[in-house]
Amino acid sequence: MFQDANTTQIDQAMQRAYAAFLQYRHTSGKDKAAFIRAVADEIEALGEAVIEVAMRETHLPAARLTGERGRTCFQLRNIADVVAEGSWIEATIDTALPERQPLPKPDIRNMLVPIGPVVVFGASNFPFAYSTAGVDPAAAWGAGCPVVVKAHPAHPETSEMVANAVKKAITKTGMPEGLFEHVHGAGFEVGKALVLHPKTAAVGFTGSFAGGKALFDLAAQRPVPIPVFAEMGSTNPVFLLEDALEKEADKYAKLYAGSITGSMGQFCTKPGLIIGIEGQGLDTFSNALAAEIRQIQPAAMLHSGIAKAFRTKRTDVLTQESVAVEAETSLAYGEEDGIPSVASVTAAQFVANPALHQEVFGPFSLIVKCKNAGEMQEVIDHLEGQLTCTVIGTEQDLSKAVDLLSSISLLCGRLILNGVPTGVEVCAAMQHGGPYPASTDGRFGSVGPHAMKRFVRPLAFQNFPNHLLPDELKAENPLVIWRMVNGNWGKD
Amino acid sequence: MFQDANTTQIDQAMQRAYAAFLQYRHTSGKDKAAFIRAVADEIEALGEAVIEVAMRETHLPAARLTGERGRTCFQLRNIADVVAEGSWIEATIDTALPERQPLPKPDIRNMLVPIGPVVVFGASNFPFAYSTAGVDPAAAWGAGCPVVVKAHPAHPETSEMVANAVKKAITKTGMPEGLFEHVHGAGFEVGKALVLHPKTAAVGFTGSFAGGKALFDLAAQRPVPIPVFAEMGSTNPVFLLEDALEKEADKYAKLYAGSITGSMGQFCTKPGLIIGIEGQGLDTFSNALAAEIRQIQPAAMLHSGIAKAFRTKRTDVLTQESVAVEAETSLAYGEEDGIPSVASVTAAQFVANPALHQEVFGPFSLIVKCKNAGEMQEVIDHLEGQLTCTVIGTEQDLSKAVDLLSSISLLCGRLILNGVPTGVEVCAAMQHGGPYPASTDGRFGSVGPHAMKRFVRPLAFQNFPNHLLPDELKAENPLVIWRMVNGNWGKD
Repeated sequence: MFQDANTTQIDQAMQRAYAAFLQYRHTSGKDKAAFIRAVADEIEALGEAVIEVAMRETHLPAARLTGERGRTCFQLRNIADVVAEGSWIEATIDTALPERQPLPKPDIRNMLVPIGPVVVFGASNFPFAYSTAGVDPAAAWGAGCPVVVKAHPAHPETSEMVANAVKKAITKTGMPEGLFEHVHGAGFEVGKALVLHPKTAAVGFTGSFAGGKALFDLAAQRPVPIPVFAEMGSTNPVFLLEDALEKEADKYAKLYAGSITGSMGQFCTKPGLIIGIEGQGLDTFSNALAAEIRQIQPAAMLHSGIAKAFRTKRTDVLTQESVAVEAETSLAYGEEDGIPSVASVTAAQFVANPALHQEVFGPFSLIVKCKNAGEMQEVIDHLEGQLTCTVIGTEQDLSKAVDLLSSISLLCGRLILNGVPTGVEVCAAMQHGGPYPASTDGRFGSVGPHAMKRFVRPLAFQNFPNHLLPDELKAENPLVIWRMVNGNWGKD
Repeated sequence: MFQDANTTQIDQAMQRAYAAFLQYRHTSGKDKAAFIRAVADEIEALGEAVIEVAMRETHLPAARLTGERGRTCFQLRNIADVVAEGSWIEATIDTALPERQPLPKPDIRNMLVPIGPVVVFGASNFPFAYSTAGVDPAAAWGAGCPVVVKAHPAHPETSEMVANAVKKAITKTGMPEGLFEHVHGAGFEVGKALVLHPKTAAVGFTGSFAGGKALFDLAAQRPVPIPVFAEMGSTNPVFLLEDALEKEADKYAKLYAGSITGSMGQFCTKPGLIIGIEGQGLDTFSNALAAEIRQIQPAAMLHSGIAKAFRTKRTDVLTQESVAVEAETSLAYGEEDGIPSVASVTAAQFVANPALHQEVFGPFSLIVKCKNAGEMQEVIDHLEGQLTCTVIGTEQDLSKAVDLLSSISLLCGRLILNGVPTGVEVCAAMQHGGPYPASTDGRFGSVGPHAMKRFVRPLAFQNFPNHLLPDELKAENPLVIWRMVNGNWGKD
């Protein structure tokens, strides 16, 4: 239905984006915010129609999609608020000391400036929140960068509708046309051409490890390498401590059955590994989780490719040595459905077998049974970088777990106590990203306003007369933003 | 004299550094600051002896080296101050909303945490300030990361003396031994092994494009890619505007003769390109600059490899089509000396010939003569990323130069008006780094406290009881640092 963009169209899109950059980079925070808010308004104005199309394309239910659309508009407005307020650009001022010996000190002022057009690859599992006008485009626009989106081939119509909403917002707020370009591309070639285009300054991606890594490698080999911010998923290990298992196994079994299977487990923060020490408590938990899982209603996965990959990877894990199925849904499921299920394995086998460390994207989790705390530490030492890690423990557990928490914190971008990793709050303190291979660069995150930091660089102005400085750096602080002046934070 | 580290020694150094990391990452800002200040004290305590060794190894004069040592201690103490104060870790807190509908909002708190051992390659041209205890180690220690330094083979004894000073500081402040490891390596193999070691988390490098690019490529191809912060030099273009040339040609000629030839032009911010529009003013400037250059006393370059490379590259430029020598020193020079000199070329030739765009490391600059403003813009459009760009203009020039300044600002990390690019001030507002190929990642800089940002990542804590949080994030703000709490900056 939608044709892949050809080389000429891709070049034209990038050239328009670059032309827009030359104008948009000087746009005020307030005007950028007005545009970003208009995008949210226009997405809301799409009403039920876009939800229906998204339901058809992704098989996700209306409530989930409506919630996700709400989240998308919230994060657009959240970034708009931060950009309108303006302090996020880290204005730093060191004033001159003309009398200093042996040499005078010049006046130097610094702020974050945008880096150029950002190419965004939408995610299949979030047709709104991590796609066409999702967090990567919102962050890029906030930062001052135009966006070129490659629509996800699994929901091209939803993407097209959202793209039209963005274009309306551009027109209504008088922004340059190339602030948003939308191209389709089912195969790898379109994405490759976008990443290799000389006008591309950065890439945002949410998806598989294979996809993210391929883009990262391409970008590193360009004549001018550019950063790729790929969020590539995670097994999100959960560590169950003994006292909590003894006292609250049932409560957490119920909570985790929901977290493993919600939206058919198609979240990058789905808990895919559950690690505990063998004993009565872990048995109670496993049995209760099994009982819950048997009652979970299967549903169609995002698309047949995802359904197929889920089955292949699940089977791959289930057929590894010493892996036992703990439970599977007892309800009927079709070819395209996820199969809610949980398996288990010993820690020794887990440590020895890297095939068990991979993410199974879908409603599946693996319980890793340790003989003792030493084995749990060994599991930790063998885990790769993660978006999240979670520890479940009572006050008594946690009072003895300081070293364990410290050790786990090396692995992840977000460390959760007594909760579930699914449900990524949109707020300034969130970190959605983690050490490799959770993300290509764990020094950045893709949720919340600090996602903008990926698309900016510091620029220092030395010895500028006040009237030639950007407003952010002028002596009188006309934007009334927080600034660091000669080492002191303030607005005055 | 110093043996290259072998594979076992390299592995041991990295393992010790990692072991130190596990302890040092929990060290308080005040204790980190005490260690970093002790490093400065111990370097000062080396007295004249280290200056004499550095003079012998680098051929730089005592005054320059003494000044550079002062700068090194200043930047250590500057980072120590910022780390002791503590706000730089960007504590961000979003408190819980347990009553929120449809789902409660959890408590989420975020701060920057260190990423692990940092490998540092010292620079030949700054035996103190960008070497063994230079800005990269200072920034890594401030960030909470141990440092493994590969001594620069051109000044191994200086490096060894500074290394011993650092080790004394470690002992005196009770820090873990592996906080600093020092290895020698004349060839590429030692550096390669350090970059490829699994415990290496990041790399800091200052030197040539070829060297930095090789490390960048190695790091990108690791099973776990790591960031390489290579500052690879620059031609630091200077744009001379017409009214300034008419009124102040002599003044700027004198200033630039010094900037081109100071320390025999061995600064990464040496102005290597001077771009002006043909006419009386530019002629006056060129003649005055030529007269100055003829009087510059040649001196030995850092080492014979640098002297040889300077001559090769200078000759390469001088033998390109249409390049004319404007002036050379009239004083005698030896085999190892730099040759203070200036050449010129037309803008049309410059644009057409990429061989003229390369950095000639040493006391040489190329004047690019434009026919008009259009040609000057064409030169800008053909320049690569730069550490600095400079514009020389009167108020009258600058009032017409808004578009020009905007266009030039795309190229560089620091934009200077009516000054020289040499002399990189150590302060929070400095940006030392620029778009590729000036640095491998222009989103970061290697001078000033924000150099620490290269070696940290955000870590979010969700639903933590107060007593298990790091002090930086505790409810009562025991460190009294600036924090963003529910969107508001404050210390309360």
